[in-house]
Amino acid sequence: MVEDDASPKIQVCILMFQGHDVLDYAGPYEVFANILRNPDAEFPEQVFDITLIADDSVIQSSRNLCVNRHLSIEDAYTRIVDYDILIIPGGPVRTLNALCERNGPEVKFLRAYASLPPRPQRRERVILSVCTGALLLGCTQLLRGRRATTHHKALDVLRHVCYNEEATGEQATEVIKARYVDGGFLDNGTRIVTSGGISSGIDASLYVLSLVAGREMAAIAGQIMDFDRSSSLRNIEGND
Amino acid sequence: MVEDDASPKIQVCILMFQGHDVLDYAGPYEVFANILRNPDAEFPEQVFDITLIADDSVIQSSRNLCVNRHLSIEDAYTRIVDYDILIIPGGPVRTLNALCERNGPEVKFLRAYASLPPRPQRRERVILSVCTGALLLGCTQLLRGRRATTHHKALDVLRHVCYNEEATGEQATEVIKARYVDGGFLDNGTRIVTSGGISSGIDASLYVLSLVAGREMAAIAGQIMDFDRSSSLRNIEGND
Repeated sequence: MVEDDASPKIQVCILMFQGHDVLDYAGPYEVFANILRNPDAEFPEQVFDITLIADDSVIQSSRNLCVNRHLSIEDAYTRIVDYDILIIPGGPVRTLNALCERNGPEVKFLRAYASLPPRPQRRERVILSVCTGALLLGCTQLLRGRRATTHHKALDVLRHVCYNEEATGEQATEVIKARYVDGGFLDNGTRIVTSGGISSGIDASLYVLSLVAGREMAAIAGQIMDFDRSSSLRNIEGND
Repeated sequence: MVEDDASPKIQVCILMFQGHDVLDYAGPYEVFANILRNPDAEFPEQVFDITLIADDSVIQSSRNLCVNRHLSIEDAYTRIVDYDILIIPGGPVRTLNALCERNGPEVKFLRAYASLPPRPQRRERVILSVCTGALLLGCTQLLRGRRATTHHKALDVLRHVCYNEEATGEQATEVIKARYVDGGFLDNGTRIVTSGGISSGIDASLYVLSLVAGREMAAIAGQIMDFDRSSSLRNIEGND
């Protein structure tokens, strides 16, 4: 892929695993993939470079749809500092619980990304969870002291995952029902956004798009996709 | 997959091709995949069996995401009478135009499906196009004498594809801007539904779901996906 040095592509990394939900990554993928430098051109130039990373080369959804990764998680470490946005899709609760308990490559990569040194001169990094992907953020303590959301049927599970006797007061997680929640920044300046069930990942992606590329761009993306952006919870944006 | 003879799975076939748009099939996939006989069970039993068919074993989207087919188009002919719903995703206009001009396996399969003998004793068949997938329906004359829609930027292209000097009056196609349009039935009782841009395929799928499994089921599916079904164009439903 040809890089334009003057304005390099914004790097999106999607952390995939066996048993994910299809729309959780496909919605965000479509949002970011449709942003072009040269709309209507014969050979479109994408503004975002999107990389699916996974431990296995073929990743099967919870409902038997198989996609191919672009890169192994191991190889993704060599580029980890370049990823501007890390997206964590969800899946059935038992799948996410198993990922947390296993403490495997997915959890380790998320931890490593969340622990990167600050880069004050460059674009802010964003971690975006979709649906029950928030459980992975919860079990790695990234939601401490923040507001967060997840699929409406998994709100109590997320509360349970985030609950810790040491994590009270300012360290507690406020789990709310919302389309998406901007949970503010980690100490290294990485923003944490969590979204509700499945399709709300599209709304959350449009929100993240507006942060990194402007509100106008997000409006254009919504138009391209014929997506009526949910306005019901815009007041949840920017609570930091 | 174990079939329950008393109530066999409803068969959904998605006709894939190189250069499709991801959300065009992923949205409908998620809608139908989430309908379960036994909600909340450890081992969910899907009501719909969804098969991605394609000429190539790996199918790359217009933006570099690769999925694996379940079945070749050639092998799908052995099951063609069993498919209850055939979904045609879209992609860039030039990709769909090339498919129409090539008159290859995709067009031939669509023609064969649309020409199946009636099955009055069983569930009605449905052909559902998403986004520019409507161009494939147009070039195979399936939209003659109907109302239809497509991505709002491709309305004129669809008009051009459907235009034919012989197809005037009752044979003309009325191309309108809509979230989705129920275009009525072919002579063999197969219903033709077209949808607008990308995410509206989710709305159209929920509509088709309501036809084959009831409105209550469609409402449940929307809830599972946290999807606010667009109500703006419900008056386009059921014009036959």
